[in-house]
Amino acid sequence: MLVDGTAYRAIWAGDDGRSAHIIDQTRLPWEWRVARLERLADAAEAIAAMRVRGAPLIGATAAYGLALGLAEDPSDAGLERGHAGLLATRPTAVNLRWALDAVAAAVAPLAPGERAAAAFAAAGDIADGEVATCRAIGEHGLPLIQEAARAKGEGGPVNILTHCNAGWLACVDWGTALAPVYRAHDAGIPVHVWVDETRPRNQGASLTAWELGRHGVPHTLVADNAGGHLMRTGQVDLCLVGTDRTTRTGDVANKIGTYLKALAAADNGVPFFVALPGSTIDWDTEAGADIPIEERDPEEVTHISGRTDAGEVTRVALCPEGTPAANPAFDITPAQLVTALVTERGACDPTEDALAALYAGPAR
Amino acid sequence: MLVDGTAYRAIWAGDDGRSAHIIDQTRLPWEWRVARLERLADAAEAIAAMRVRGAPLIGATAAYGLALGLAEDPSDAGLERGHAGLLATRPTAVNLRWALDAVAAAVAPLAPGERAAAAFAAAGDIADGEVATCRAIGEHGLPLIQEAARAKGEGGPVNILTHCNAGWLACVDWGTALAPVYRAHDAGIPVHVWVDETRPRNQGASLTAWELGRHGVPHTLVADNAGGHLMRTGQVDLCLVGTDRTTRTGDVANKIGTYLKALAAADNGVPFFVALPGSTIDWDTEAGADIPIEERDPEEVTHISGRTDAGEVTRVALCPEGTPAANPAFDITPAQLVTALVTERGACDPTEDALAALYAGPAR
Repeated sequence: MLVDGTAYRAIWAGDDGRSAHIIDQTRLPWEWRVARLERLADAAEAIAAMRVRGAPLIGATAAYGLALGLAEDPSDAGLERGHAGLLATRPTAVNLRWALDAVAAAVAPLAPGERAAAAFAAAGDIADGEVATCRAIGEHGLPLIQEAARAKGEGGPVNILTHCNAGWLACVDWGTALAPVYRAHDAGIPVHVWVDETRPRNQGASLTAWELGRHGVPHTLVADNAGGHLMRTGQVDLCLVGTDRTTRTGDVANKIGTYLKALAAADNGVPFFVALPGSTIDWDTEAGADIPIEERDPEEVTHISGRTDAGEVTRVALCPEGTPAANPAFDITPAQLVTALVTERGACDPTEDALAALYAGPAR
Repeated sequence: MLVDGTAYRAIWAGDDGRSAHIIDQTRLPWEWRVARLERLADAAEAIAAMRVRGAPLIGATAAYGLALGLAEDPSDAGLERGHAGLLATRPTAVNLRWALDAVAAAVAPLAPGERAAAAFAAAGDIADGEVATCRAIGEHGLPLIQEAARAKGEGGPVNILTHCNAGWLACVDWGTALAPVYRAHDAGIPVHVWVDETRPRNQGASLTAWELGRHGVPHTLVADNAGGHLMRTGQVDLCLVGTDRTTRTGDVANKIGTYLKALAAADNGVPFFVALPGSTIDWDTEAGADIPIEERDPEEVTHISGRTDAGEVTRVALCPEGTPAANPAFDITPAQLVTALVTERGACDPTEDALAALYAGPAR
């Protein structure tokens, strides 16, 4: 998407065919810094230090990292070492393993001298594939926004509430939840996004507000507490969020607080849409209650980082020293609160039958 | 309540009969500072600068302020000037006017020489009255916690979720929502409080966590987003919040985000109690939708204050410069989501009939 008029992806190959570039997301929204990855170790560090985050982007970065490693050592041992080293950077990311396996499978049959170039091409294919998936989510979500715009007529922009960051920064390009928003905006449909700040890590305030602002999409930041009031007072036309994992019955695990917004949407007749690539559907899990919820470091609740008036990025405590805190990172939104799932194959009801039917055939 | 073993109120008269003391709440939770009010101007500044906050405490502080003013100038003109000056400190606080009127009415008939002492006594009565009201709320709320404890048996403490600060810091002593909690804790009932941080002003993280900690009540700070997940996973036995205004039909205006917790409570069968003094019932308003919602400074959303590792309290920005933000300060929880209203006259259903019956007779 655009950054002040220039089109970017969250990762792209260098012209020399031996490097990749990322936007250092640990510096956002305070500083725009492109980092050049030249060695496997650079890619591993970028993933581990969360300079890149979001499952699709982590996968693509790992793929490029493996290609960079094969340029250093194209032997079987080098391939194995690279795969293992990159896999260890974020042990729980499913996309990470999938991308590394895909690159390894593509280059293993080749002579060592051909591997680096082939791995680079495979990494490019993986990145392109993520972009195509997100573009398709945008296409299938666009009619939902168009419908809201038609219903609204001249009544101002379509007001869309989102939670956390499910934008292009997490997904190479387009994003999941934000893909339909960018698509609608680019098509000239007036949209306005309510951006939940998304405590405790504030991905909404720091990343979603940044990417919407840079692309020129009108938006307003609000505390996570505000969404219910906004919906009760008719200021939200639809909610659109991403998901980390969706069960085969349509229960949705997403950033903590999503469930509260879904409850408010249901209470006020506001459609609640969840955007996702099929790769995040957990076909082996029936109920959301069976998804383990990651409990993260309490310091994410007791402390926060921001920029002082003097321009320095610093961390401050928000509560009395020694205050106990809990930090569940995700919650479950039950399928019955979800209006529709928006995937790269189309939108469907959040039911086992509808999901199975959508993904029954080969990828379209 | 206790501060590390010593009993305090949020305001108390000096032994000299010509001063009052407050805890400077702008310094909390970082610094314990008692401020001595010696002149009317000190009291006015304390209210305007929010060194004291919470309607009952503002009223009591204004009452003492008027007494201090009468010690400086006990004439009719002095009384009028003092009343007007203190009233202007926080134009929308209903308790402020009520307390000033009460003191003025008590001293106006007296000779100037008797006014200061009488005003001091009247201010003390007002403070004592607030404490008695809150103590009664605690008494009437206690059985709700006892019942939860009985139902739970040996299953650990009663887990109570609260939002914002409705504790003794706002109310001279005891608090409203926290009064039953303190009462239960002091009675030896094991309780544990989930403290919503309460963005954007973080009254939960900075004040509720502080006062519960100092009194020794077990508690855990959570992001506002977490409450839905906690309720879905059986970790909350009841919710207990305060309110700024309750309509005669039982709709409740409280700090933004309260409504979302009430929705989650209803969805999970968790009782949702609202504690209030009768003085905050708005008998003239039928529906919550008729209560105007204050829109506060967007900088409360885009910036936050905290303490650096070096011990300095500083303000940091949380989002890209120039990000538009909205800051509705309250929301409406409709009566049908409220299990019971807990008042100084007892607990009742959130209905027009039940409220009218409870307040039909003289104060008990």
